[in-house]
Amino acid sequence: MFHVYGFVPSLLFSQAIFEMPTLNKQVIFSKVPTDYPVAGEHICVQDSSIDLDAPLEEGQFLIKLLALSVDPYMRNRMRDASSQGYTSEFILNEPMTGDTMNVVLKSNNIKYKEGDLVHGKTACGIFAQYAVISKEMEPMYEVENGPKSTGLPITNYLGALAITGLTGYVGLLKYGAPKKGETLYVSAAAGAIGQLVGQIGKVLGLRVVGSAGSDIKTKFLVEELGFDAAFNYKTAHTYTEKLKELCPNGIDIYFDNVGGKMLEAAINNFNNHGRIIGCGMISQYNGQEPEHVDNLIMIISKRLRFEGFVVFESLDMFESFRNDVTKWLLEGKIKYHETIFDGIELTPQALVDMLRGKSIGKQLVKVADF
Amino acid sequence: MFHVYGFVPSLLFSQAIFEMPTLNKQVIFSKVPTDYPVAGEHICVQDSSIDLDAPLEEGQFLIKLLALSVDPYMRNRMRDASSQGYTSEFILNEPMTGDTMNVVLKSNNIKYKEGDLVHGKTACGIFAQYAVISKEMEPMYEVENGPKSTGLPITNYLGALAITGLTGYVGLLKYGAPKKGETLYVSAAAGAIGQLVGQIGKVLGLRVVGSAGSDIKTKFLVEELGFDAAFNYKTAHTYTEKLKELCPNGIDIYFDNVGGKMLEAAINNFNNHGRIIGCGMISQYNGQEPEHVDNLIMIISKRLRFEGFVVFESLDMFESFRNDVTKWLLEGKIKYHETIFDGIELTPQALVDMLRGKSIGKQLVKVADF
Repeated sequence: MFHVYGFVPSLLFSQAIFEMPTLNKQVIFSKVPTDYPVAGEHICVQDSSIDLDAPLEEGQFLIKLLALSVDPYMRNRMRDASSQGYTSEFILNEPMTGDTMNVVLKSNNIKYKEGDLVHGKTACGIFAQYAVISKEMEPMYEVENGPKSTGLPITNYLGALAITGLTGYVGLLKYGAPKKGETLYVSAAAGAIGQLVGQIGKVLGLRVVGSAGSDIKTKFLVEELGFDAAFNYKTAHTYTEKLKELCPNGIDIYFDNVGGKMLEAAINNFNNHGRIIGCGMISQYNGQEPEHVDNLIMIISKRLRFEGFVVFESLDMFESFRNDVTKWLLEGKIKYHETIFDGIELTPQALVDMLRGKSIGKQLVKVADF
Repeated sequence: MFHVYGFVPSLLFSQAIFEMPTLNKQVIFSKVPTDYPVAGEHICVQDSSIDLDAPLEEGQFLIKLLALSVDPYMRNRMRDASSQGYTSEFILNEPMTGDTMNVVLKSNNIKYKEGDLVHGKTACGIFAQYAVISKEMEPMYEVENGPKSTGLPITNYLGALAITGLTGYVGLLKYGAPKKGETLYVSAAAGAIGQLVGQIGKVLGLRVVGSAGSDIKTKFLVEELGFDAAFNYKTAHTYTEKLKELCPNGIDIYFDNVGGKMLEAAINNFNNHGRIIGCGMISQYNGQEPEHVDNLIMIISKRLRFEGFVVFESLDMFESFRNDVTKWLLEGKIKYHETIFDGIELTPQALVDMLRGKSIGKQLVKVADF
């Protein structure tokens, strides 16, 4: 997989003397989308080159990307630099960033050793096959040799055990304030966050109901993940009626990934003093006309608490999250389903599929063997 | 003011021997409204009679109504018994109830003495000129001789110092979590609750901005009550622009009495981690088509907390509320403005005016001299 620039055949035989560029594919944010992004238009894969043999300055280390994560918040980052959002925007014509797992190829930094697994974290890992990381970027790259000791797949450290998992954990535990026996409803339940929220709910003794966009997904939720009930929102007559049927004791906690009419239906079925965890509003990301929520008065009549959160403000919960979820995964109390595309070239499609709800579970891209 | 039923002139001279009926006007809930209620159609004043000289059973006491309070939550109570609301519904063709101040005319109950002032409380005081209160109704009637010791007007004990005032106090302190220097925005600010919320905000060191439905009201808010700024929502070009102008540092707390587009505009101007106190949604009470709030996604991006409350769940705060607000009223730190109609016959009109936003400050009805 070498790509040689220009006509310099002699270089092939003189690697030690001359610098040898290696193909380094990158995922580029190429255009601000107004609706759903399109692979190849708004997100492109671009060739660049890197000299893997170039000497490293003091503090630098060279990493090879093994796997990357595509997540819903990325749609929010795909915006004009002048508009507001809850995360920093991607820079046009620059590589996108996100959660990545990498291996150190060589290092001139005492904290990172050759062979170490390194997590490009809090949405800052570069989406490129190779990267030289400077000392200043240390806070974004953390040695994560967890997979070597737990035996859990590397990809788990980009979902269940990473920021995605933390989002579900923080949302449910901190903002949902769950009490045993209560009813939890999760929308986008077969997604990266939803599947974990529902299963943590079961561990905590809640009745858990989920919705998703296909019969395959709802079957998966009940039969594979142990949800008490699930429905396909695309074929439900009305969300309100369906939730009434599946939550006969009403809803106490709604983990909202969707917003719009789904939020309205949940509010219709809420018990007094219920909690709405505002995690995402995928119904509002891509369309022009927002769906209306016309029963907000019930927030008063039912004394609901509707709280939005951004996981980066709850990083203090990371350690307890990591301990709990690792334990539950190893005990088999939680199964974390992943859809993995093979090859960095498929990153744009993976992101689009995830946003369009085609993926089951966590959508990931494998970039190199591990 | 005696009204004699039937042709029994001799009774006029034999009061001690025969029972003598006295006219007892009552305010009746006569029809469920679909829009704004109409005086005389949905709320009527009906004559009945009472024998003031009838002997009282053990535990009973006879009260005379001095003043009554009309409040926004009453619109919610004017509904069909089968529909849901955040307060108990009024019973059709029965007297309405609410906060009242009364004087004991005679008593066969050791807890209530002739001349005592008695508060018909937590929305349970009967809207009738006279009433015999049985032992079972004791929890709804409390001796309230406060006006005799503080010198504050009896009517203050139906607004600033009663459930209305408690609503503002609990909302702002418990759900608003105010911090000195923050910006508080109050809609319906010249109303019974709003005027108190704004002034408590000033006592706590907040920047306070209010909106109301006339220039007279907004002038009153700034010049009489000490709000930092106020605007007339009926002439504002857009609520969002106006709030941006008057809250240059953004909004930290919104005490929402209105909902709909006003809530949307407040959300547009919120700072991160702001609190929306869901107290009422007068924009949604009377119309058929709810106003849309189309920027709920900002609850996530700005990490807002939107919490609805009903004051009856925070009665534990009554004592500290009563102490604080009595002190602030006596010190002149808070001025409580009242619009008082004279005569129980004007109760329907008082209620309608209040719902239509015609009243300035707290709307009350004086029923008898005090």
